[in-house]
Amino acid sequence: MTDESSFDTVCLVGIGHICASLAVALRRNGLARRLVALEIDPEARRVALEMGLVDEATDDPARAVPGAGLVVVGVPVGAMEQVGAVIGPHLTAGTIVTDTGSVKQAVVRDLGPHIPDGVHFIPGHPIAGTEHSGPSSAVDGLFVGRWQILTPVPGTDEAALERLSEMWRRIGSDVEIMDPQHHDKVLAITSHLPHLIAYTIVGTASDLEGHLQHEVIKFSASGFRDFTRIAASDPVMWRDVFLSNREAVLEVIQRFTEDLTALQRAIRWGEGETLQQKFTETRAIRRAIIDARQA
Amino acid sequence: MTDESSFDTVCLVGIGHICASLAVALRRNGLARRLVALEIDPEARRVALEMGLVDEATDDPARAVPGAGLVVVGVPVGAMEQVGAVIGPHLTAGTIVTDTGSVKQAVVRDLGPHIPDGVHFIPGHPIAGTEHSGPSSAVDGLFVGRWQILTPVPGTDEAALERLSEMWRRIGSDVEIMDPQHHDKVLAITSHLPHLIAYTIVGTASDLEGHLQHEVIKFSASGFRDFTRIAASDPVMWRDVFLSNREAVLEVIQRFTEDLTALQRAIRWGEGETLQQKFTETRAIRRAIIDARQA
Ligand SMILES: NC(=O)c1ccc[n+]([C@@H]2O[C@H](COP(=O)([O-])OP(=O)(O)OC[C@H]3O[C@@H](n4cnc5c(N)ncnc54)[C@H](OP(=O)(O)O)[C@@H]3O)[C@@H](O)[C@H]2O)c1
Ligand SMILES: NC(=O)c1ccc[n+]([C@@H]2O[C@H](COP(=O)([O-])OP(=O)(O)OC[C@H]3O[C@@H](n4cnc5c(N)ncnc54)[C@H](OP(=O)(O)O)[C@@H]3O)[C@@H](O)[C@H]2O)c1
Repeated sequence: MTDESSFDTVCLVGIGHICASLAVALRRNGLARRLVALEIDPEARRVALEMGLVDEATDDPARAVPGAGLVVVGVPVGAMEQVGAVIGPHLTAGTIVTDTGSVKQAVVRDLGPHIPDGVHFIPGHPIAGTEHSGPSSAVDGLFVGRWQILTPVPGTDEAALERLSEMWRRIGSDVEIMDPQHHDKVLAITSHLPHLIAYTIVGTASDLEGHLQHEVIKFSASGFRDFTRIAASDPVMWRDVFLSNREAVLEVIQRFTEDLTALQRAIRWGEGETLQQKFTETRAIRRAIIDARQA
Repeated sequence: MTDESSFDTVCLVGIGHICASLAVALRRNGLARRLVALEIDPEARRVALEMGLVDEATDDPARAVPGAGLVVVGVPVGAMEQVGAVIGPHLTAGTIVTDTGSVKQAVVRDLGPHIPDGVHFIPGHPIAGTEHSGPSSAVDGLFVGRWQILTPVPGTDEAALERLSEMWRRIGSDVEIMDPQHHDKVLAITSHLPHLIAYTIVGTASDLEGHLQHEVIKFSASGFRDFTRIAASDPVMWRDVFLSNREAVLEVIQRFTEDLTALQRAIRWGEGETLQQKFTETRAIRRAIIDARQA
């Protein structure tokens, strides 16, 4: 194909929730002639083929990587280094390599060094997803109307960046270019902290005495339920996010804890006005999100 | 009407989100011949009448209360005492008085003493609602498939309790009888803590420097957004919940903080196994909620 934003062959490394959804999006928009999954898990390969997500699924990088014009790495952030070592030797000049990892500095650090000269390495992060994992959880339209953040390293080829950006726009995403460090700081607040808090609160409930836990489940519709959905997200993916964005996450936990302590004191001392004022301020943020059409 | 679960006249005290939704439910199921709102806000009265939610709206308890077979008090928990003083003198023997407050011990304490002998006082709490408030936010079907918790005080008339229970069942709710103290303990975990945490995390974000805050809004789809919906709930309602369920709320904050500190330490010291194990445990709760069909 000669089209600016489409590829002849795209290789998806790790055909899980994100890459499987991407496979659907690439097909639906005619952005790849051929899709190949590089996947170590035979069951995931079987499912991906059976669902018709990809044309070929293999665990052999020598088969999957060389002919691809675009390689998308969709594995947990902690596995990026290992995947780099596996695919690096098979990458050929002119290929674009991107990823979908939820942390970006660690990917630049761990995957970057394995990318040979002449190969265009453009880290990325789609702000889209669900709490499910594996190829069977592919969602048609997952990326439509969502942000795709790209965090190119200095010296990135402009044409390659534009080609990848155009591909995401054709899928229906809005593309935002950002510095990896800045990405990790923003996402620590918008995504990593909320997930940690949800895991914590659901964990607190799961430590309760049996009959109380039973009732927490029964009456979960009163707020708790929303947290359990978030806290059902993949444990390995999130372990890796917290370990690889440690500094930014620890800083926002610190801020959060200070703010919680202030509210706790206000409750203890019956300071109704403080509570009401704080609770009023947060409404403004919700309104802004609705105005930004992200709600 | 002679039907076991329907009433001739129902008086709704405070025609806000919950009572307005109840008005819709009562009409839809033919459970009241006549609906009267006792409401201090002229604008809310106007809206309630204009929407046809009630037949009459007044701020005069002498008009609204005496003829009603059922009085439902749907005001913030901190206003129960005041409302009790206003309606108490107009209540007549045989009337059932219930409420919708999110805390139950405080309602027994504050509203209870104003209920004359011979009037059946049965505190209640529908486990249903949204982040919106006021009569214009009425939701048709809000209570269908949701729990209605009733916390009768000792000596409650069995027939009155059954009549009120049957009314809620006809609306489509499942009725659960519970001790007020137990209610407050369970809801502190399932509802009050999640709301406090959501308020905190959104508050943390709203304290950020301007441009960072802008980006938090922009990329909110990554987890944060769910919290902002919860944190958009009515500030007065929630101020009252925290102040009136102080003890139980402070206890669960304490547990939560300990659990968060443990995860924070695991992140700081790179303890991946601890994180992965904790994150795996929380999935079981989500599954249980799905099995309980509360998700
Ligand atoms: N889920 C979301 O909402 C979301 C959103 C945005 C970005 N992301 C990011 O996207 C990436 C993929 O997430 P996902 O939700 O698609 O996860 P997923 O459904 O669990 O898929 C991950 C894939 O990576 C493979 N994998 C795991 N460890 C590997 C290793 N050491 N070597 C090679 N392959 C390995 C898995 O194979 P096995 O089946 O053998 O484990 C699986 O195919 C992660 O970096 C995540 O942070 C996720
Ligand atoms: N929202 C939920 O999701 C939910 C769920 C379950 C239970 N509840 C409980 O149900 C009750 C009502 O909540 P809601 O969401 O319906 O609130 P809402 O929409 O804000 O309505 C509250 C109503 O109470 C009136 N009111 C407030 N202060 C009053 C006072 N001092 N004297 C007399 N009337 C007063 C308000 O009138 P004004 O317009 O003059 O303020 C308004 O009509 C609360 O106790 C809440 O805890 C709420």
